[in-house]
Amino acid sequence: MGYDASTLPDVSGLTVGIIGGTGDQGRGLAYRFARAGLSVLVGSRSAERAVQSAQEIAALPGVPAGTGVDGGDNVDVSTRSDIVIIAVPWDGHAATVGALREPLAGKIVIDCVNPLGFDKQGPYALKVEEGSAVQQAAALLPESRVAAAFNHVSAPLLADPEIDRIELDVLIATEDREVAGVVAALTATIPGMRGIYAGRLRNAHQIEAFTANLIAINKRYKAHAGVRVTDV
Amino acid sequence: MGYDASTLPDVSGLTVGIIGGTGDQGRGLAYRFARAGLSVLVGSRSAERAVQSAQEIAALPGVPAGTGVDGGDNVDVSTRSDIVIIAVPWDGHAATVGALREPLAGKIVIDCVNPLGFDKQGPYALKVEEGSAVQQAAALLPESRVAAAFNHVSAPLLADPEIDRIELDVLIATEDREVAGVVAALTATIPGMRGIYAGRLRNAHQIEAFTANLIAINKRYKAHAGVRVTDV
Repeated sequence: MGYDASTLPDVSGLTVGIIGGTGDQGRGLAYRFARAGLSVLVGSRSAERAVQSAQEIAALPGVPAGTGVDGGDNVDVSTRSDIVIIAVPWDGHAATVGALREPLAGKIVIDCVNPLGFDKQGPYALKVEEGSAVQQAAALLPESRVAAAFNHVSAPLLADPEIDRIELDVLIATEDREVAGVVAALTATIPGMRGIYAGRLRNAHQIEAFTANLIAINKRYKAHAGVRVTDV
Repeated sequence: MGYDASTLPDVSGLTVGIIGGTGDQGRGLAYRFARAGLSVLVGSRSAERAVQSAQEIAALPGVPAGTGVDGGDNVDVSTRSDIVIIAVPWDGHAATVGALREPLAGKIVIDCVNPLGFDKQGPYALKVEEGSAVQQAAALLPESRVAAAFNHVSAPLLADPEIDRIELDVLIATEDREVAGVVAALTATIPGMRGIYAGRLRNAHQIEAFTANLIAINKRYKAHAGVRVTDV
């Protein structure tokens, strides 16, 4: 009953779209999935910027020749992808997600957005009316299958071509056990990572908010901290 | 600048009091500190029950002969201890902590209480007016030096005499860097554990609430899950 990667579904044939794929987190995830040989679509408000970013990612070290990495605007990418990751700034989250209700209908949507504020004492969790970013996405996308995941993954680690393995766990919050399996399988395409089911959407807030703690840890210990779940 | 146990203060001469020391979490922590040879005081509303619990803990496997393990009521234990851990149920937290303002003045107080509710869908984080249990403690104990820690430590692991090492990190939230060092040193007396500074008190809520996620993980993977911070 522990974590067993061999029981996860096959996601090698799926196309992963990343809304906000030109930002640090989205770009880093796009790179890692492309490196794993998955078809990746980089989404942005500007199709032109997305295509340029996709071309840059395809040329990065470790991406197998022939891997499909393409770009498009957010609607186009949502339409053409099987799984879509939301990686936009919290500021534009509701507007961006709400505009994609139709193209995201029936799809798996992974939200990795962390609603944080910053002041002179550092980062802190923002209050979100729906409870969390992923619950806001679930409210705006009633026909989609929504999960939170990849909230804690350090963008500098994702982007560094010298790093082969990223040793951490991705915490997955969702109402849908099948979605949890697909997200865990997607996570497992990145060497070193495990996707661990970590509760329902109502318990996603603290996963998102914990990013503020990771930032405090990074500052104190000069690290790119992540989380590993013990005894699993 | 990473975690370095050799830089932590010496806590071997300190007396650790545990309010709620007859409960599962408190009793487990008392056992581990006694096993490490620290002087431990078990606190309870009933001095009699506390003394009985202390005698039982002193007789458990691995506690060095001559280790001071004694019991008393909560006021007595608060008065006689250098560091006091609050390990009471959330229900009685405000009343218990508020009554100890005077004996806890000037002392280091570690709050490990998690405000959780349970319904048919499992555990969830309760709203706390002050933001978190530890912030409530800080408000009630203005003369004390307050930290959150030990929120995620599994009581069954603490209690199991067959388990020598408990491999996880204790996340420490506090405003006081010196307190963070003392709590980290106390944590390091339990083999396998590290105490990691994880931010200010305003970012303690998500540490407490994350216990709901650990309970979900335990259920899904049949584990006693904890957290290890990666890259530190």
